[in-house]
Amino acid sequence: MTAIAGVDPRTASPLPRVAQASTPERVDKLARSAAAAAEALEAVGRHNRADLLDTLADAVEDRRAELIDIASWETGFGEAKLHGELTRACYQIRFFADVLREGSYLEATIDLAADTPMGPRPDLRRLLVPIGPVAVFGASNFPFAFSVLGGDTASALAAGSPVIVKAHDSHPATSKLSFEILAGAARSSRQAPEGILGIVYGRQAGADLVAHSAIRAVGFTGSLSGGKALLDIISQRDDPIPFYGELSSLNPVIITPRAAAERGEAIGAGLVASFTLGAGQLCTKPGLVLIPNNADGDRLIGSIRAALQDVTAQTLLNERIYTTYTEETTHLRHHRDVTTFDTAHRSHPTGFFVDAFVFETDITHLDEGLIHEIFGPATVLVRYDAGAPEAAAASALQTLPHSLTATIHHGSGETDLTHRLTAVARPTAGRIVYNGFPTGVAVSWAQTHGGPWPSTNSRHTSVGATAIRRFLRPLTYQDAPEAVLPTELRDDYHRIPRRTNGTLHIPGR
Amino acid sequence: MTAIAGVDPRTASPLPRVAQASTPERVDKLARSAAAAAEALEAVGRHNRADLLDTLADAVEDRRAELIDIASWETGFGEAKLHGELTRACYQIRFFADVLREGSYLEATIDLAADTPMGPRPDLRRLLVPIGPVAVFGASNFPFAFSVLGGDTASALAAGSPVIVKAHDSHPATSKLSFEILAGAARSSRQAPEGILGIVYGRQAGADLVAHSAIRAVGFTGSLSGGKALLDIISQRDDPIPFYGELSSLNPVIITPRAAAERGEAIGAGLVASFTLGAGQLCTKPGLVLIPNNADGDRLIGSIRAALQDVTAQTLLNERIYTTYTEETTHLRHHRDVTTFDTAHRSHPTGFFVDAFVFETDITHLDEGLIHEIFGPATVLVRYDAGAPEAAAASALQTLPHSLTATIHHGSGETDLTHRLTAVARPTAGRIVYNGFPTGVAVSWAQTHGGPWPSTNSRHTSVGATAIRRFLRPLTYQDAPEAVLPTELRDDYHRIPRRTNGTLHIPGR
Repeated sequence: MTAIAGVDPRTASPLPRVAQASTPERVDKLARSAAAAAEALEAVGRHNRADLLDTLADAVEDRRAELIDIASWETGFGEAKLHGELTRACYQIRFFADVLREGSYLEATIDLAADTPMGPRPDLRRLLVPIGPVAVFGASNFPFAFSVLGGDTASALAAGSPVIVKAHDSHPATSKLSFEILAGAARSSRQAPEGILGIVYGRQAGADLVAHSAIRAVGFTGSLSGGKALLDIISQRDDPIPFYGELSSLNPVIITPRAAAERGEAIGAGLVASFTLGAGQLCTKPGLVLIPNNADGDRLIGSIRAALQDVTAQTLLNERIYTTYTEETTHLRHHRDVTTFDTAHRSHPTGFFVDAFVFETDITHLDEGLIHEIFGPATVLVRYDAGAPEAAAASALQTLPHSLTATIHHGSGETDLTHRLTAVARPTAGRIVYNGFPTGVAVSWAQTHGGPWPSTNSRHTSVGATAIRRFLRPLTYQDAPEAVLPTELRDDYHRIPRRTNGTLHIPGR
Repeated sequence: MTAIAGVDPRTASPLPRVAQASTPERVDKLARSAAAAAEALEAVGRHNRADLLDTLADAVEDRRAELIDIASWETGFGEAKLHGELTRACYQIRFFADVLREGSYLEATIDLAADTPMGPRPDLRRLLVPIGPVAVFGASNFPFAFSVLGGDTASALAAGSPVIVKAHDSHPATSKLSFEILAGAARSSRQAPEGILGIVYGRQAGADLVAHSAIRAVGFTGSLSGGKALLDIISQRDDPIPFYGELSSLNPVIITPRAAAERGEAIGAGLVASFTLGAGQLCTKPGLVLIPNNADGDRLIGSIRAALQDVTAQTLLNERIYTTYTEETTHLRHHRDVTTFDTAHRSHPTGFFVDAFVFETDITHLDEGLIHEIFGPATVLVRYDAGAPEAAAASALQTLPHSLTATIHHGSGETDLTHRLTAVARPTAGRIVYNGFPTGVAVSWAQTHGGPWPSTNSRHTSVGATAIRRFLRPLTYQDAPEAVLPTELRDDYHRIPRRTNGTLHIPGR
């Protein structure tokens, strides 16, 4: 049996053993328990599940200090980032409770029996029901908000689907404590059936989980290669299941000539803050920046260089990320068409400490060596002919792999250009940011965190209200007796938004 | 080059050549044209696309006589079935025009900039946008409603996604004429950009289409083996794309003891009408019927036998379906645990004419030889201990592959039993029918035509309003200038249902 333990990124020394790798028997037992619990979790009902989510968030808040402590140890992230992330995780759990109570997510729809041009229509009543047990893979870079306590867990439980988490190998102790808090709170609440939460450790256990017949969907935030490996497992299953993967994203930023002229310094400083946030290990890190090749662009780059000097050395999350980052930045530093700027701190005696890097090149040199995601505090500045920003954006965005986000910094009087740049950016991303930075993903009703492949493998978001849709499927009752209908589909129920004979009705109005 | 031609099912003789199999170059040209047309089709706007759909439906109606004529020739279906199906196809196209005008499908959502417990939130505005070119595979059994003129084409065009149809080899002339009508109407309308419609012929062209990088989704109604072959192609792509496949469905029917006692004769007659409709080549054909093993059940089966005598011989759609049906019914007729009833007409000198069959067995004999879908006018009656209907349903539904539908015939005073049978049926199907038959799928807002694998590979319906969701993806604008926002996301727009800061608003109320 393989022991599961983290590594302190500040020293590269191993941390105490957390668990043993989960055996196939253990995975099987958890998956069966989850399947057995699915009906009961749905039967608990929307309002009780909402209360359960609030209970879970309260329990997490109660153990905040411990969670921050252990995550700091395992990830090397600063306490401010970790506090912010835990606040986010709790907010997100409670947000899904609100989504449940509001009830639109059910898409309750009634077509009463009627004659139609197609002939007589029976009484049809539709709503969304839980998909069944979900495997959730914790992410390395968000030990709280995209891991055991994260959005996939919260939205799947909200949907009424049991969850089995695969703990990330980089923070197994954080995962274990997170899980124990959730499982303990669930046990002591009255709303949670047995078996709705499980956790497994180790890569093979993750693979076994995805292959297990009881698992009905996979939520994954991680690398493109890791995602593809899980997709291969799914394609071997008797029944393909949906894979909601967030995989890889360059998040290009386009800076128009006017934006550079009007706000070059602020943009430069903002960019450095954005691409070094979380040591550049954010899925929304701006990895490529199109900057006009003129004096305004030069000044903007000057402000980037200046801001870079204030960036202190940061640790990366694990040895694999550290090694890859070192290799890739070394490659770019020796690339003949690339100019390198870096921080002045070059001495890191221990651990996974690295410097931030900014690489500069010309758009005529954009090629496959430059256009892949680098996980860590590095970004690539690409200079373009200031007379042709739209052509530059079109050329770059058609060459680049698609992303979660695209960002446009525009200036005054550039409405037409901004419109055209938006048209160029739209097919390539799930969120378009104007005069801001892509890092920082608000949890809200209108958020989209999901874009075209390879940024995700989904036509849904993994952040925000509609993330719940990933773990639901439609079910229609035809001519059902009132007594067997879910409450929300009965004639006299009017407490949620509901469509009847094609017309949407809102409660109390 | 392979010539594409249908076969007359009544005589098995080949029909005139319709086309050549499409070359890889042709597929590539169409896919590129579709990709080039995607932006323009979206830019046309909801209301113009709705008008376009109405124009298409009108054009189809204008050519009704020709379409019926040619489809009758190629499919062997009776004129009544074909007229009904064409009415359905036109109704469906116009229905999606209504869905567009109503506008809820956009899921327009606005979160205004605000302070939140997570910190400041930017202005976020979300709606669904078209996914891009869609490959639609026509089905053998619905030459209109699930082929070139069908729901996949209508919902994809409604979404704003160009469509390339793969004509089904069983009705290439119907497909060609259908396509020419659509393409001609689109050309002569002002709303349709060039390139939004294409058609390809031949199996290899279908495979090439699914592999083409410009194609963003696949809509498929066909066999499980055909669907799996396309899934294999998708798993070889650089970018996996969604596959919306409707593949295989047994559609079990559960008849409770009271239902058999109270309405046995009517149920028997209704069952025969349902499983022989369209020569039993419907995806919602009831393929397995649980009947109590008592005198009421015997009487019900007596009425099935009686009704069966009035069923005339019907043709199947093509040689493959004919051969498979003949082999599978022969196998069951010689199965030692199976009793066979059939029609009295055994002499079919030409073509793909077949008899209807009913097979009877006991639930203790349910095994893999009995539990797969038989495409054609046959069904399997499974007798169960009348004292244990719930156990019988649970045992059968847990053994059977999942289906599009499950049907429960219940009697008076069986509320509790109906409730429990519903709980058994729910995880196994996308639509639950009470005291009716699964054939006949209304086009409406509340319809679900889609269930767990292997009935479909989708968490969506392929019939009804929300079928459009398959061809859309979410996009969020962050802090966008008003001028670049889609109309439906601007501050002063209030003509569709829209959510602002979490609250849903309906126009004019």
